[in-house]
Amino acid sequence: MTDSRAPDRAPRGGARQERLRELNLELVFRHVLAAEGPISRTELAAATGLTRPTITRIVEELIAGRLVTEAGSARHGRAGRPRVGLALSRSGPAGLGLDIRADGLAACVVDLTGAVRHLAFAPLAFAGTDPAAVLDRLAAMASAAVEAVAAEHLTVVAATLAVPGPVDGGVVRSAPALGWTDVDAGALLAAGTRRLGLPITVDNEANLAAHGELHATRRTLDNFVYVSGGLDIGAGIILDGRLVRGSRGWSGELGHITVDPDGRPCPCGSRGCLQTYASPQAILGDEPVPDGTMPEVAITTRADAGDAATLAAIDTAGTALGIALSNVLNILDIGTVLLGGGYALLSSWVTERVEAEIARRVLSAAWAPITVRPAILGPDAAAIGAALTFIDRLRQDPAAWFASQR
Amino acid sequence: MTDSRAPDRAPRGGARQERLRELNLELVFRHVLAAEGPISRTELAAATGLTRPTITRIVEELIAGRLVTEAGSARHGRAGRPRVGLALSRSGPAGLGLDIRADGLAACVVDLTGAVRHLAFAPLAFAGTDPAAVLDRLAAMASAAVEAVAAEHLTVVAATLAVPGPVDGGVVRSAPALGWTDVDAGALLAAGTRRLGLPITVDNEANLAAHGELHATRRTLDNFVYVSGGLDIGAGIILDGRLVRGSRGWSGELGHITVDPDGRPCPCGSRGCLQTYASPQAILGDEPVPDGTMPEVAITTRADAGDAATLAAIDTAGTALGIALSNVLNILDIGTVLLGGGYALLSSWVTERVEAEIARRVLSAAWAPITVRPAILGPDAAAIGAALTFIDRLRQDPAAWFASQR
Repeated sequence: MTDSRAPDRAPRGGARQERLRELNLELVFRHVLAAEGPISRTELAAATGLTRPTITRIVEELIAGRLVTEAGSARHGRAGRPRVGLALSRSGPAGLGLDIRADGLAACVVDLTGAVRHLAFAPLAFAGTDPAAVLDRLAAMASAAVEAVAAEHLTVVAATLAVPGPVDGGVVRSAPALGWTDVDAGALLAAGTRRLGLPITVDNEANLAAHGELHATRRTLDNFVYVSGGLDIGAGIILDGRLVRGSRGWSGELGHITVDPDGRPCPCGSRGCLQTYASPQAILGDEPVPDGTMPEVAITTRADAGDAATLAAIDTAGTALGIALSNVLNILDIGTVLLGGGYALLSSWVTERVEAEIARRVLSAAWAPITVRPAILGPDAAAIGAALTFIDRLRQDPAAWFASQR
Repeated sequence: MTDSRAPDRAPRGGARQERLRELNLELVFRHVLAAEGPISRTELAAATGLTRPTITRIVEELIAGRLVTEAGSARHGRAGRPRVGLALSRSGPAGLGLDIRADGLAACVVDLTGAVRHLAFAPLAFAGTDPAAVLDRLAAMASAAVEAVAAEHLTVVAATLAVPGPVDGGVVRSAPALGWTDVDAGALLAAGTRRLGLPITVDNEANLAAHGELHATRRTLDNFVYVSGGLDIGAGIILDGRLVRGSRGWSGELGHITVDPDGRPCPCGSRGCLQTYASPQAILGDEPVPDGTMPEVAITTRADAGDAATLAAIDTAGTALGIALSNVLNILDIGTVLLGGGYALLSSWVTERVEAEIARRVLSAAWAPITVRPAILGPDAAAIGAALTFIDRLRQDPAAWFASQR
């Protein structure tokens, strides 16, 4: 809306020229990022309103900067002759995602196209979940990942750590599943990865997994609640294609929705939290899980074997999850629930119960049925979503990447 | 970010000049709207980056169009001499809000400054809540309101109707408190007000009341949950200064949050909805309320008289409301709850219970306490919020107003 005022406001002379150059480069790069496949210089000119010579110059810069490559042919124009297509580079900047999961630690690198180029997993075999030990181990995995992808001409530009709880800056405020309170995970990870010189972000795992899922489903779905059931139960909420983070970034505490006000005691201090009925640990009860086995795998193994206690616990969990999700859907008016993380593995067992509660309890379900289905990405969603955040960073400031390459 | 591309993209010649003129007018008008008091031409030039002659010309247009007036002196500049201040007009365009409440029907007109210039109320004395009869009555109130403010040189440019339930276009999908299902309230109201020629919008009353409250508290609060308890219980959610409407506009169904999964049956078909414990009617039980009395007034009268059943019902309601709100806060991470509509009257009776449940059940409350307090606007919030929506409409397209005045 404010375009036409630019002549009154832009800086003068050389500075203005330089800023204009940067803005045009950003604009073209965003169009390549948003394109569903290779896009031609002619299409870029039409989409941006920039002249062909300007497009040609900018594309040269983007290719030299390893953000874009010439790749195959773009969709045909009106004339039959195929055009040279431009695509995102698979050998330029990359993002690193780290995740603390129920069964172990994960590290993941994605490239600009969103493709996973490295995925490593380490069972949580050391005793307990001492923050320093966990983050030391993750730092080592980070170094190995950066080294591994360097051999494929990828340059990791940022690291994001997924944790099961609300985060404040780099500090994990509360992660009951790990027994962590006010742990400065950002500082601990930075200390262990100083040599890599990466900017580090710490974020909630459900938010990051939802972000990963949004990327994976981008063209088809922009309103959903993503349920993450790895350690504690959390939710990532996508409304109009954007993550709803809440006023301080602590949204999505699905695990602490009250399902029964006088119900089971929860380590958080409340009673009847969803967590106490539907977390993998709640379903398993006191039965131990072998080290390095995902709790959800243990659950489905027992359920497949017809274990009555496990089947009853799954029913209870599905009903409780349905009640809690109904509350979310009544408040936020979202038409799709994705069962993600470990919960994707349980989806065939719980979906029917979840759907029944939603049909009964969500007001709008009477005229607009709600879809419940497994998420696409599976247990690596948070690590992948964490790695993918570098693309947003790059979209907002490609100049920083060019500066780092000089 | 895209300013500098304007020369490449704006239309050419006369059309471009005209569009630029419109955009500059919009820009200046928005700055007058956003100013906290009178603002001078010099301040407008500094804030917009436009030249003084341009500002002078645009201000003349805005004054001629009755959007702005010269009013008193603006804040002093560096030199001591006071400048002529510009303020929003109190005799130009205005908005009409209509509301269907528990105790009757309300009509409200606000001017561009947000001041209420007309407020009429009619007890719901006709039998039942037949949609055609209700909307006929509202249409008559609308005509009377438009006529009344015309005498004060106000021109009503839009009407918004508040209803207690989810809305789809102009259709009320479900308003159990009125016994309405799929009522095309927009068409009925349009038929009754054809002579006025107003654009009509129908929206949820909790959303509109929250919008009114946002306006009333604008400079101090941009994240809150507004509880509306007039007929059914609803919520309006403000996050980062914007109303969260959900993916289809049906957010905020607080009254149908499950408080007890096996609890009291609700007309919606579910069990244990907040509604069944905490609506004014639920607190009153089977005791009739005199016609034209707000249920909340009847409740406080009985409570003040020490009626044991009423006091117990208030305790139950407060606890249930606290549980339901805890769910909202865990999901959305919002730090303030405003008890609005009729619930403002009950706030001194229920706040303590609500706070106790929140302190116990909201995860982040452990390190970031949550505020619960009465809303500012009282029972007229939805009517006022509905009337205020014309300002957003005008902000987005002042040219339409100028066109209508030619």
